[in-house]
Amino acid sequence: MSSNKKYVYLFQEGKAEMKDLLGGKGANLAEMTNIGLPVPPGLTITTEACNEYYLVGKKFPEGLEEQLQQGLKDLENQIGKRFGHQDNPLLVSVRSGAKISMPGMMDTILNLGLNDITVQGLIKSTNNERFALDCYRRFIQMFGDVAMGVPHHEYEEILSTVKEEQEVKFDHQLTVESLHNIIAQYKELYQKHTGEAFPQEPYQQLLLAIKAVFGSWNSERAIVYRKHNKIPDDLGTAVNVQAMVFGNMGDDCGTGVAFTRNPSTGEKKLYGEYLINAQGEDVVAGIRTPLPISSLEQDMPIVYQQFVSISQLLEKHYRDMQDIEFTVERGKLYILQTRNGKRTAAAAIKIAVDMVHEGLITKEEAMLRVDAKQINQVLHPRIDTTVKLDVIATGLPASPGAASGSVVFDADEAEKLGKEGQKVILVRTETTPDDIHGLVMSQGVLTSRGGMTSHAAVVARGMGKPAVCGCEGIKIDYQQKLFTVGAYTLKEGDVISIDGSTGHVMLGQVPTLAPELGGDFAEFLGWADEIRTLGVRANADTPEDAKKAREFGAAGIGLTRTEHMFMQQERLPFVQQMIMAETAEERQKALDKLLEFQQEDFYGILKEMEGYPVCIRLLDPPLHEFLPNREELLVEITRLKCTGGDPALIKEKETLLKKVESLHEFNPMLGHRGCRLGITYPEIYAMQARAIFQATAQLTKEGVKAIPEVEIPLVIHVNELAFLRNQTIEIAEQVMAETGVKFEYTVGTMIEVPRAALTADEVAREADFFSFGTNDLTQTTFGFSRDDAEGKFLQHYIDRKVLKENPFVTIDPYSVGKLMDMAVKLGRSTKPGLLIGICGEHGGDPESIEICYKLGLDFVSCSAFRVPIARLAAAQAAVKHPR
Amino acid sequence: MSSNKKYVYLFQEGKAEMKDLLGGKGANLAEMTNIGLPVPPGLTITTEACNEYYLVGKKFPEGLEEQLQQGLKDLENQIGKRFGHQDNPLLVSVRSGAKISMPGMMDTILNLGLNDITVQGLIKSTNNERFALDCYRRFIQMFGDVAMGVPHHEYEEILSTVKEEQEVKFDHQLTVESLHNIIAQYKELYQKHTGEAFPQEPYQQLLLAIKAVFGSWNSERAIVYRKHNKIPDDLGTAVNVQAMVFGNMGDDCGTGVAFTRNPSTGEKKLYGEYLINAQGEDVVAGIRTPLPISSLEQDMPIVYQQFVSISQLLEKHYRDMQDIEFTVERGKLYILQTRNGKRTAAAAIKIAVDMVHEGLITKEEAMLRVDAKQINQVLHPRIDTTVKLDVIATGLPASPGAASGSVVFDADEAEKLGKEGQKVILVRTETTPDDIHGLVMSQGVLTSRGGMTSHAAVVARGMGKPAVCGCEGIKIDYQQKLFTVGAYTLKEGDVISIDGSTGHVMLGQVPTLAPELGGDFAEFLGWADEIRTLGVRANADTPEDAKKAREFGAAGIGLTRTEHMFMQQERLPFVQQMIMAETAEERQKALDKLLEFQQEDFYGILKEMEGYPVCIRLLDPPLHEFLPNREELLVEITRLKCTGGDPALIKEKETLLKKVESLHEFNPMLGHRGCRLGITYPEIYAMQARAIFQATAQLTKEGVKAIPEVEIPLVIHVNELAFLRNQTIEIAEQVMAETGVKFEYTVGTMIEVPRAALTADEVAREADFFSFGTNDLTQTTFGFSRDDAEGKFLQHYIDRKVLKENPFVTIDPYSVGKLMDMAVKLGRSTKPGLLIGICGEHGGDPESIEICYKLGLDFVSCSAFRVPIARLAAAQAAVKHPR
Repeated sequence: MSSNKKYVYLFQEGKAEMKDLLGGKGANLAEMTNIGLPVPPGLTITTEACNEYYLVGKKFPEGLEEQLQQGLKDLENQIGKRFGHQDNPLLVSVRSGAKISMPGMMDTILNLGLNDITVQGLIKSTNNERFALDCYRRFIQMFGDVAMGVPHHEYEEILSTVKEEQEVKFDHQLTVESLHNIIAQYKELYQKHTGEAFPQEPYQQLLLAIKAVFGSWNSERAIVYRKHNKIPDDLGTAVNVQAMVFGNMGDDCGTGVAFTRNPSTGEKKLYGEYLINAQGEDVVAGIRTPLPISSLEQDMPIVYQQFVSISQLLEKHYRDMQDIEFTVERGKLYILQTRNGKRTAAAAIKIAVDMVHEGLITKEEAMLRVDAKQINQVLHPRIDTTVKLDVIATGLPASPGAASGSVVFDADEAEKLGKEGQKVILVRTETTPDDIHGLVMSQGVLTSRGGMTSHAAVVARGMGKPAVCGCEGIKIDYQQKLFTVGAYTLKEGDVISIDGSTGHVMLGQVPTLAPELGGDFAEFLGWADEIRTLGVRANADTPEDAKKAREFGAAGIGLTRTEHMFMQQERLPFVQQMIMAETAEERQKALDKLLEFQQEDFYGILKEMEGYPVCIRLLDPPLHEFLPNREELLVEITRLKCTGGDPALIKEKETLLKKVESLHEFNPMLGHRGCRLGITYPEIYAMQARAIFQATAQLTKEGVKAIPEVEIPLVIHVNELAFLRNQTIEIAEQVMAETGVKFEYTVGTMIEVPRAALTADEVAREADFFSFGTNDLTQTTFGFSRDDAEGKFLQHYIDRKVLKENPFVTIDPYSVGKLMDMAVKLGRSTKPGLLIGICGEHGGDPESIEICYKLGLDFVSCSAFRVPIARLAAAQAAVKHPR
Repeated sequence: MSSNKKYVYLFQEGKAEMKDLLGGKGANLAEMTNIGLPVPPGLTITTEACNEYYLVGKKFPEGLEEQLQQGLKDLENQIGKRFGHQDNPLLVSVRSGAKISMPGMMDTILNLGLNDITVQGLIKSTNNERFALDCYRRFIQMFGDVAMGVPHHEYEEILSTVKEEQEVKFDHQLTVESLHNIIAQYKELYQKHTGEAFPQEPYQQLLLAIKAVFGSWNSERAIVYRKHNKIPDDLGTAVNVQAMVFGNMGDDCGTGVAFTRNPSTGEKKLYGEYLINAQGEDVVAGIRTPLPISSLEQDMPIVYQQFVSISQLLEKHYRDMQDIEFTVERGKLYILQTRNGKRTAAAAIKIAVDMVHEGLITKEEAMLRVDAKQINQVLHPRIDTTVKLDVIATGLPASPGAASGSVVFDADEAEKLGKEGQKVILVRTETTPDDIHGLVMSQGVLTSRGGMTSHAAVVARGMGKPAVCGCEGIKIDYQQKLFTVGAYTLKEGDVISIDGSTGHVMLGQVPTLAPELGGDFAEFLGWADEIRTLGVRANADTPEDAKKAREFGAAGIGLTRTEHMFMQQERLPFVQQMIMAETAEERQKALDKLLEFQQEDFYGILKEMEGYPVCIRLLDPPLHEFLPNREELLVEITRLKCTGGDPALIKEKETLLKKVESLHEFNPMLGHRGCRLGITYPEIYAMQARAIFQATAQLTKEGVKAIPEVEIPLVIHVNELAFLRNQTIEIAEQVMAETGVKFEYTVGTMIEVPRAALTADEVAREADFFSFGTNDLTQTTFGFSRDDAEGKFLQHYIDRKVLKENPFVTIDPYSVGKLMDMAVKLGRSTKPGLLIGICGEHGGDPESIEICYKLGLDFVSCSAFRVPIARLAAAQAAVKHPR
């Protein structure tokens, strides 16, 4: 191999762009060095050296050793210490560093350069014999374990035996003698396993360590990892050799961590803490109380000034708030690490807005500085996490936000107390449409059964109320009006708190923080609106929902679920009457009554959304959902019969049961619902269409611009849509004729079953718009029902990494996303420019929104409370994937 | 327009290939004429004439009339009659005839040429005044209605008024006077509507009729039909003018219908009947009893000889058995129509085999001469349809074949009586695994609930026993041991018959015909096997099934459902023990017992299928299917509690209920089943794999070649398959090590959920084979469960033509077929030549088999009784789509 190849780069010779040659870590250390940071000096051995090492049969390529020795000399000169020097020894760390970060690779070796002589130098310079000996002990262990394959547990056995003999519990309690004892035993262990004495020569230590790093590139772990992650085998790894620095050599030393801005509030002011005469881990360990970073100005004025300007430099260079680790060794400041600092959502927004104003970043960049998912934090009251919490149970985090209140087990009671101004939490095994009035007046809801799509969860999310569902730990006794959980028993009136973002249930009142939606937040989302091309609508079932939707910035309603209206307490009897009707007149009477209600609903929503489109989905769920539960009826009838109940009542219940039985389904999700109802009972959809158009005509007369979009659910074949579209158009024309008012409307369809997606070119012939229902599409594409999967095996799948994530939270791009892509392309092949959106929970998930943007959708729709998230996520997608 | 264009062709001037110019009908009449058939002569006016008629503004193109007149003269000469002649008038029919048959076009006008004078000639020549007048009356009506737009119902009103006055019910009861009266009124009606007298001049009648045919090309009906069927508007229609002939002019006349071979048995002998001095409709009307065709030899020896040679000519020309209509007018034989004759399956097979032997057709052509679906007829005992049947109810035709027996309501009783040699029909609301022993000993099963995939239906089809399911008309009273249906009450012991091919339930014993499977049938299917490239396997769950599968010619087992083994009476307790186990030991004990059973099962099947592959699907259904019904338990517990039942029993039932509740699913089809069980309870699949491999090792030792294919159901992600495949391979290696026997096996997967199809390239990495489960794939792709759809709305969908056919019967090529296509291509992109099959009901459906062939599958698998159908359908696909 050519000897004039450069295999060794001092940090100052590299730069960020040289990742191929220096690896990721080496390139970054070089970058930091070159922007003027006082990084402990070091050198990087190139990936090329690693590859040639293998090419020539695991030998150092010609020239490498000479360059390494020269590099070490440069290092010694820079730091003023010498490798192997008895008073002032240079100690180094050795780390691997491939181009792509690989967790399967070699760990770090610290304190390389220590031996029986240099450890004396460390004792002198730190004035801490225990510390120096402990470093030596650790070095022997790390070197033996990581570089030479001496079994880790054998070291640990020696260590614990000595600790037992000394009757101490923690490492730092070991005496100097014990440490000498351990070091001696470690050396023996090393010799036993390697057949050679522990190397005392630092340069020899270094060569062995470098070979070990090269070797780790082809360890089994690393090969498997590369195979799994499709990383080429011929990249090779670099080796980083960096001088060690110590913050615990005396009072002119120290160590600390600081953020360039406040990570909780975003305020532009250094925020952090440090310790004098301490090591990095001491700050974290909490044995001594660190001082606020501002005190450093008194303690070490020069270092402080230096640090302030470095932190400014770093912010400018990385154009983001930095989280900086530093060490001061004998008055000299070293920067050990800098990275973008973690922050709360509120801080993230403030920092992004400030940095735009400071001219540091563009609005587009600002978008990427806030985690869209995190925005939830600022939209709901949240638990003050600085307070200790008594978590007594954990359920599913079904609807975000936190709330406290008295336990109530009954919807009527909840409504009563709520109206009296009392704060209550409704606790039920599960909720039904009969409980809605109680839910409305509660602070939140807790159920012991049901998943993320249970009635309680869906309704609570719609209302923006916290909900914890499927909390199986709690056992409710309605008769005694109490619930037990573990050792606790909570009676009606006892106060609990729930956190719908974590699923926690807590004893007593818990302090919460209110959301802040003005100022920076509004400005930030305003920019998001300027940047994004994807529309954002909200799902809304009532005029109140619609109002909220507008407040949160939704430009339309993407989904109005008419069944939620059917389930309201005063309407349900008429819905049941419609289902139970034995004559056409009886049925029409019920439908007429429902028509009134529905017209009122649609009038309210369309008015609230003046000038914006409102997509109204016709009835979707199977009719048996509106009737009493089958099992309960069976049990009740059996009980009535056994106990000689009223024959008339028994007969009535049996009639009801007969109807319930006739509507019973084995798989309701795959049953007689959606447009299948529309086809078999055309009068129901006809009534709904009439209600929509009568409301529209009424508003038009009043000078209010109403834009209804009639949506047909669960279509699998264009013929279904054609039939129902024609009926809808006929009714619209009738209403126009009757009222003498002209109005605009469209008729479109949900794409929520694979067949609709696969035949979208056909379906598009009859559709003015598509709206993806990806919850159902996920259920059918995966062949599992959300309730059953989440209740039974989905968590197991995710824990075992069978699935990477819950496909109901984020669209699976490989299946559902693929079908969506086909549907978009097929649909627009028939109708270029066809309006296509998505409604349902994925519409509020940032990753799914990015997928929707990439697929070319026109809008996403989500619950009102997620609209800000969607606005930001849509802007982020536009920034990430410019068109 | 050029006058030297030929617009009029005599029949003898055309041929079959001239459809563009002469239309379909004209070309066929020409063809028949030219092969020497005595077809009543006629002429065809070309489609070109029609197009030019429109081009020049609805006028006859120059030259047409002259050619028409010349043609008529030729016609008169050929037939020896004259247009408008008072003694011997030429009468003609006028029909439209486009290139492509169009039901939306003009109807026929018969007897054109009749007027007040020629009707007298017809009276004389037929010697039947009533008949001649009726012809005239009909002509005026047809001409007015079809050609001139006189409202049909006004004619009918005149007719019925006269019938009322005469107090007669049928047209043929009208007297001569009444007919004169009607004719007079018809003429008035005509004049009223057209403003002109009914045309007496035959040539004028003809011109008007031709214009009417041309006009019908652009009728609204025809335009809509063309648009819908994508037929170009510029084809134009031809007009056929053909001489009428009459078989009722005296004893030298007659009419009849005959098949060139026996359509019931296929015997090569003329088969048919005729009437002397009669019209075609008289044969059908059944007023006089027709004579067998053989008598014609005495009655009209010359005509008979002529007819025999014509029928031979026709068979040779059309190369198929013909169904021929003929008329003899005054000793002259006319062939009015010939078409391929309908025939029974048995006849179809015999005719096809004979014709191959006769050298008339090739083996490949023979394949297409038998309707694969019809083959079912010859495989099962079938009802003798010549007997009158008392059908008392109709359910779903759940498993083909016919059977008679005494009604029994209880499986134990059925088993007892069956063992005593009595023939019984098991009648249940629905069956469960507990009823299987009774089913085995019954002739057939009748249920009042459940669809085509109900337990009874699936089990019966597997056993090849007739089943009628979901027969909702019957109401069963188990306590009284009877069922009622309409006015009938049937008690235990009463005899009924069921026809599982039609769903009929009949009173009493019904004569049945036994299947014949040797001779021609075997020879025919042998040819199918030579021709086909697609493999045919059978589904089999027991050694007996496997034996049947071999008998029917299956080359392997495509699906062994292990759950059917679990459901057998002696095993179910151990399955329940496994599910209910509270300790690992308890569970293992149950599993060990099941291992014994399963090993025995697999041993038997693999042995029966020596040298052929056996694809064994690991456990698929959710575990709750093996436990008692939830509602029944709830009701039972309520009853026990109300009536002070034994507390220990209540506690036991409650424990059971708790387990049932914990396994309860909202949508079992989309629930915790298939490989999801394998992932969450690895010990179940491990037990099954061990049973398979131990059986294989045992057989290998005995010198029997066993070829197991282990199939993992309901895979949605390659990770599931990878996990379970690894476990299976480990167990195979363990068994090989334990037994010291090497054997071959493969591990593959079902593709039955859209996600698996969409990611088949990934899935293929871990699969040795794919097997499509198109029942589940259809359920998920359509988003409807088969049971719910067939019970609730699917029939409505098909009746209303929302769906063209039941997608569970024939694969929907636009969705499920599309997913299969993707899966095949993706799978083989990863593994070229990957073995791919299909199991389940579609595997026995001829149309679906054709789809599978076109998609490039390697095999289909179906129930043993459908294997012959599949063998033929596979051969047909190969003939239709040669590669």
